[in-house]
Amino acid sequence: MPSISPSPVLRGEKHSFSFAQAPHEMVLENGSRIGPVTIAYETFGRLTPAKDNAILVAHAFTGDSHVAGLYADEPDDARPGWWDSMVGPGRGIDTDRFFVICSNILGGCAGSTGPSSLHPTSGRPYGLDFPMVTIGDMVTAQKALLDHLEIDRLVAVIGGSLGGMQTLEWCVRYPDMIRAAIPIATTMRHSALAIAFNEVARQAIMADPNWKRGDYYGTAGPDTGLAVARMIGHVTYLSDQAMRRKFGRRLQDKQDFSFGFDADFQVESYLRHQGNKFVQRFDANSLLYITKASDYFDLKEAPGKPFREPGTAGTKFLVVSYTSDWLYPTYQARELVQALKRSGRDVSFCEIEADCGHDAFLIPDERLNTLVRGFLDGLA
Amino acid sequence: MPSISPSPVLRGEKHSFSFAQAPHEMVLENGSRIGPVTIAYETFGRLTPAKDNAILVAHAFTGDSHVAGLYADEPDDARPGWWDSMVGPGRGIDTDRFFVICSNILGGCAGSTGPSSLHPTSGRPYGLDFPMVTIGDMVTAQKALLDHLEIDRLVAVIGGSLGGMQTLEWCVRYPDMIRAAIPIATTMRHSALAIAFNEVARQAIMADPNWKRGDYYGTAGPDTGLAVARMIGHVTYLSDQAMRRKFGRRLQDKQDFSFGFDADFQVESYLRHQGNKFVQRFDANSLLYITKASDYFDLKEAPGKPFREPGTAGTKFLVVSYTSDWLYPTYQARELVQALKRSGRDVSFCEIEADCGHDAFLIPDERLNTLVRGFLDGLA
Repeated sequence: MPSISPSPVLRGEKHSFSFAQAPHEMVLENGSRIGPVTIAYETFGRLTPAKDNAILVAHAFTGDSHVAGLYADEPDDARPGWWDSMVGPGRGIDTDRFFVICSNILGGCAGSTGPSSLHPTSGRPYGLDFPMVTIGDMVTAQKALLDHLEIDRLVAVIGGSLGGMQTLEWCVRYPDMIRAAIPIATTMRHSALAIAFNEVARQAIMADPNWKRGDYYGTAGPDTGLAVARMIGHVTYLSDQAMRRKFGRRLQDKQDFSFGFDADFQVESYLRHQGNKFVQRFDANSLLYITKASDYFDLKEAPGKPFREPGTAGTKFLVVSYTSDWLYPTYQARELVQALKRSGRDVSFCEIEADCGHDAFLIPDERLNTLVRGFLDGLA
Repeated sequence: MPSISPSPVLRGEKHSFSFAQAPHEMVLENGSRIGPVTIAYETFGRLTPAKDNAILVAHAFTGDSHVAGLYADEPDDARPGWWDSMVGPGRGIDTDRFFVICSNILGGCAGSTGPSSLHPTSGRPYGLDFPMVTIGDMVTAQKALLDHLEIDRLVAVIGGSLGGMQTLEWCVRYPDMIRAAIPIATTMRHSALAIAFNEVARQAIMADPNWKRGDYYGTAGPDTGLAVARMIGHVTYLSDQAMRRKFGRRLQDKQDFSFGFDADFQVESYLRHQGNKFVQRFDANSLLYITKASDYFDLKEAPGKPFREPGTAGTKFLVVSYTSDWLYPTYQARELVQALKRSGRDVSFCEIEADCGHDAFLIPDERLNTLVRGFLDGLA
């Protein structure tokens, strides 16, 4: 595939917006109330005077609002945003044409209100006093942000994985606001397998004595548990094929086995490195809350309940899956496509051949760019 | 499939045998020495005077010598052995005809010498002073047991998973002793994916402060870490399909979500239960050593080295895989079959259609019985 070079010209700024000040707290799906709520967000491109060119990007589990480009106020920022290959001038989501918004999810730890934020009454971090938030609550918070920006129509909502769930939930909650939706590498509901991996990750964190039932802020946190949780997640984002290609049975900095518990194989070192890197940037409690939100997500409210139909007859959907994604396999994307079609929706579906597993949507690939660009062009 | 009823008549006895007393310690593959070595084993059926009807069963990772039947000296023993559906009178491995031997592996924790055994000099449990043992060392210890029983020919070696690796290693080390070999649901070498899951399980144990670098005997052990490790392993032994069928998104003892970190879904309760049950019977250090042995196993001694050909031109192989096994998928069984064929071996191969994942070989299934029975009949 052709390589995609970074966008040196795209410079983003991080903003934040607060709402739901007491006594007007946000009412969550489980009935509890939270406020004030801060949402960290970034925008790219220019909003037209008619405010008719906005696209909302919903980030995946461990993502943040920094979708693309480099930070304007950090001239040495060496690392472009997490979807720089997709969002930028001339990219699949062309920032010369569209005004792109991405906010950190409610419950996250990259600027938006989450379990590491300060409780308004106690002044101490919420910890487990943070209420359980759902994908629906994340979407409601994003809607408040759009109200703040005075945007009442979106050209599209797009996102992969947990971002795909938010995309679908947006279409359920605000069907009239959305022209098109692009859920990528996602599912209508978690399988038992996906719940199982999330549960093991949660147990790894809660098994760490430094977790202290979530009340670890200001002390040594549950870093070892969080690292193990990340390692579990990371394996599920890859694929057998990708791991064979990337690591095989190659040894790490040695000619022979150590016959001990050091990392012998490159894949072991890689996972340890991923785990250790993750604890620098992610809050363990956020992982607990976000995994739980993804387990709860279901386009049926509950087993036996009717399908919560996303969008309207006018909403256009582009559903994308990847051949080697075993976390949300193509058969689950097909179930989504069939459900949307039964609801009379206008659906395009594409399964992309890729051997890199669930994370494929994050990897620069001109095919996804072409697909998204063509789909957005067709909305005219 | 027809159900297979337990064998009320089969009564086993647990024996043990010790060898490698100082100064004649066993020399391990990594060059270190260990002794004395105790091997716990059980036998079923009767050895002929000519000693020509013995079959060795090699157990999987967390198995033990108790393959089948109930213990003779425990009249209330309610739980038959782990492969009771396969081994017994009239079963696939017919104990009316064959003398069946199964021993707990070296490094294990069910009677054979392992890291929880006492160090001969210090009188304290080995812990991490236990030397790294390989699949080859496990086989060497089994060979010492056969010498002790004065058996110099085996009709067959058979085993699933780690037992399949031992089966192949037996054929490499003692090709002239073996008439036939039945490696089931196994691989010639771990993929990066299999190593990755083992490594995450090990990290979960080593992250538990109660692990104390393996020196936890007589204190509260690393139970929470071990439970997480077991949960990880357990998920890899199942399959997406089996988990959908068995659990789906059904809730555990509740009508609605808890909106907390209790187990909401049945699959969560199930995994927690499996984890907690496992710590009652398994030693965390044994898990570390055995997973490492399985990661090291390779029918090439090292990358780039030639294939270590199992058996002789006269050895008959039956290789079995399962359609839904994603830990050791069928493509890996096919690679084994092709390598054996290139070595001029007589190989039969069967992929069994089953949706229950890697653990399928442990689940009563008349098809495997029929296959093994027919293969053994054909050896005459």
